[in-house]
Amino acid sequence: MKKIDKMTPEEVRALIRKGEWQKPTSGLAMGYAQANLVVLPKKYAFDFLLFCQRNPKPCPLLEVLEAGKYITETLAAGADITTDIPLYNVYKKGKLESTIQNIKDIWQDDFITFLLGCSYSFEEALLKVKVPVRHIEEKKNVSMYLTNIACMQAGTFKGPLVVSMRPIPENLVVKAVQITSRYAAVHGSPVHIGNPSEIGIEDIYKPDFGDVPTIRAKEVPVFWACGVTPQAAVMEVKPDICITHAPGHMFISDTLNEELASM
Amino acid sequence: MKKIDKMTPEEVRALIRKGEWQKPTSGLAMGYAQANLVVLPKKYAFDFLLFCQRNPKPCPLLEVLEAGKYITETLAAGADITTDIPLYNVYKKGKLESTIQNIKDIWQDDFITFLLGCSYSFEEALLKVKVPVRHIEEKKNVSMYLTNIACMQAGTFKGPLVVSMRPIPENLVVKAVQITSRYAAVHGSPVHIGNPSEIGIEDIYKPDFGDVPTIRAKEVPVFWACGVTPQAAVMEVKPDICITHAPGHMFISDTLNEELASM
Repeated sequence: MKKIDKMTPEEVRALIRKGEWQKPTSGLAMGYAQANLVVLPKKYAFDFLLFCQRNPKPCPLLEVLEAGKYITETLAAGADITTDIPLYNVYKKGKLESTIQNIKDIWQDDFITFLLGCSYSFEEALLKVKVPVRHIEEKKNVSMYLTNIACMQAGTFKGPLVVSMRPIPENLVVKAVQITSRYAAVHGSPVHIGNPSEIGIEDIYKPDFGDVPTIRAKEVPVFWACGVTPQAAVMEVKPDICITHAPGHMFISDTLNEELASM
Repeated sequence: MKKIDKMTPEEVRALIRKGEWQKPTSGLAMGYAQANLVVLPKKYAFDFLLFCQRNPKPCPLLEVLEAGKYITETLAAGADITTDIPLYNVYKKGKLESTIQNIKDIWQDDFITFLLGCSYSFEEALLKVKVPVRHIEEKKNVSMYLTNIACMQAGTFKGPLVVSMRPIPENLVVKAVQITSRYAAVHGSPVHIGNPSEIGIEDIYKPDFGDVPTIRAKEVPVFWACGVTPQAAVMEVKPDICITHAPGHMFISDTLNEELASM
């Protein structure tokens, strides 16, 4: 059999669908966009869609499926949202209830599926032009922080902007801004460069999520809007049920990262 | 009194609010973005919001107000949607019922307001770099056409992409693409350059809406997604009630066109 890291997105999804891959998707189907998953009952859907419209940097929508639909059309033709993600987190009233391999048995006709862009896409773009990405080098999780920047509220959805931080060599900061600006569909340009306290981060070595960063001499902390933002906003609302991908266990699309870049 | 074309957006809106300006807004508050208005009852709102999310080029959302809210926050601080537009069209079941000066008396608590970007913004950007815009020179309406390109359906909202056409001198076509690409929030880059039949337009001199164009030698027809697209999609759904601005009688915002440009 072909090694998994040489497989096409469709081949990887087929493996996942059969329950033969329940691990993180980082490094798989390189070049193709991976997406965050949020599934909510219809009664929450307008407000959440509006939250994403109002906060496009942390919540870059790539595809939304209508009530009850679980087959993708845009990001991939014919992928199945109920089976094609390695692991799902099921939350009830904002609390994690279970982590499961497929959601076929708990699927509801009023479920609306949101697929959101993730930072893997712009990280690949940074690496291509030789801007180093520390947490990838160190095989760690990116450092993430709550900020003092409030998202725009929509209905009951609200909360602080969560950011991820990558230490960038001083002489590559401009290039990092330029490259990621092209990827508005996957968080886009940084939201802040430099002084962490300016956005309410007291100690850069105490991230709220992810691993402690290594920041070297002549490196500047650069902050991007993070996909944890909408997840945190959803949990605050404590919906009856909400399903997301388990962290790192993303939806692998047929869409090239490069297709998501603005022209 | 100050001449109206020298007034700030706030001053123009105040005049409109008092019922002292019921004419088109073209040429007013130059430099500031004007917006298309669509007001729909909440039951249609999720599908229409999704239609806009799926078809961002013809439906570039600038601000959405939640049910019952009529004061803007993003595009202008404290503008009143029920009074600050010179003329409103009220449609019932897809048919124009009346054209009125304010909508205070017919406002409903379940109304959701959508404000969408309009081509005035990118036309100003074209003129600034000396790309001529024929229908402005000739004081006519831009030529608009139904195409054979289908919008992505959302719920019951569907329909063809409607485009506007501007004849551009051959040697300025590249510049026109570059400039308008920066304005994704107001229709953005063209959808087609050249041969009209390629997108289903049989006779360029028989527009479906607007005036007949003048195309000179060494000019190329360039087509942009048009704000008539969402209006046509809404009318097809025949909502109980829908309110739009009367053509050309737009909402004038406090947001500079330049603020809408991508970096």
